[in-house]
Amino acid sequence: MSEVDSGPGVPLAAEVAAQAVRRLTSAILDARARGVSNPDVSEKISALADRLEAVAAHPHECVTGEIGTQVGVLERSPVSGPKNPVAVPLRFERCEDGSSLAHAEFPRQYQGPPGIVHGGISGLVLDVAMAVANRTAGPAGMTAEMTLRYLRPTPLHTEVTVRGRHLRAEGRKVWSQGTFEVDGEPTVVCDALFITKEHVQ
Amino acid sequence: MSEVDSGPGVPLAAEVAAQAVRRLTSAILDARARGVSNPDVSEKISALADRLEAVAAHPHECVTGEIGTQVGVLERSPVSGPKNPVAVPLRFERCEDGSSLAHAEFPRQYQGPPGIVHGGISGLVLDVAMAVANRTAGPAGMTAEMTLRYLRPTPLHTEVTVRGRHLRAEGRKVWSQGTFEVDGEPTVVCDALFITKEHVQ
Repeated sequence: MSEVDSGPGVPLAAEVAAQAVRRLTSAILDARARGVSNPDVSEKISALADRLEAVAAHPHECVTGEIGTQVGVLERSPVSGPKNPVAVPLRFERCEDGSSLAHAEFPRQYQGPPGIVHGGISGLVLDVAMAVANRTAGPAGMTAEMTLRYLRPTPLHTEVTVRGRHLRAEGRKVWSQGTFEVDGEPTVVCDALFITKEHVQ
Repeated sequence: MSEVDSGPGVPLAAEVAAQAVRRLTSAILDARARGVSNPDVSEKISALADRLEAVAAHPHECVTGEIGTQVGVLERSPVSGPKNPVAVPLRFERCEDGSSLAHAEFPRQYQGPPGIVHGGISGLVLDVAMAVANRTAGPAGMTAEMTLRYLRPTPLHTEVTVRGRHLRAEGRKVWSQGTFEVDGEPTVVCDALFITKEHVQ
């Protein structure tokens, strides 16, 4: 039962499963917001988990090959991976000027204070926005230090423009900036230092 | 069908649902790591989401009452909320010295590089660790600035000790620190400034 790419524009099986779980996650929280509880839903979900666990890799096993490749890692990223059910529904594009760009609307599962996106979630998304921009300029490296400044709240269910910029590189150090914007106003700004394996220039 | 607390130690319906989705999320990714795909699982998950969406609050509706209360917000936190399926399975305790403490093992859905916890996920968890410690000392406030330093990789599926410390307060400013430790060695250190609504002392 290995996965076959169904052609351009057609999502893969793992993406369909992730999207279904993402919908289910939102629906559970939205239903609870109305005080509705469906215990048999939990039983049905557990039964599906039982079935998959029976054929799954041991959770502790670090599988090489597909999941170990760079593409596999990005596709299963907990931030933007279309195959990971905890990931925020967004796709990064690489712009001509080398920056990364994504548009996101955050549903209830990413809520911090009522109606507001959790601050930690913005940091998570901005880390990846900067890594994507860095990769356009050269090696992305690993995040070594990251400073987040929260300027104003980012509302749920509202279009957020997410951008990452590669600023400069020196030896193995890469400096980058990432921003969240709502209605043209920055809500979160992130500055980071990444360290690459090799010298960049 | 409103939710009734089933007594001490017995999880509420929303916690059971969240835990079931968390298991399903891990199982989907672990099954994919073996190249196994079950398209009918996605259909069954979608059908459950359809059922819940039919009785759910509109996603854009910011429901007051239960979900708007401080307890509701914490229980549904995307970081540590037992009722939120994207949350990491961990519970913070408040220690006698005012620090917060949690033990966590991160499954595959929180993976960054192969076998390693995503750096953004550590930031997300540390934000909450510090907020819990601040709340022991007084008002928690909102995160204004947060600097994360990644010292070494944090492995998946390994016990991580998460700690938050309230450092000092001055007027409306509260300084805090959070750490990830594995085998007694820090892997991530976070320093943050929180701003409270009222003067702290």
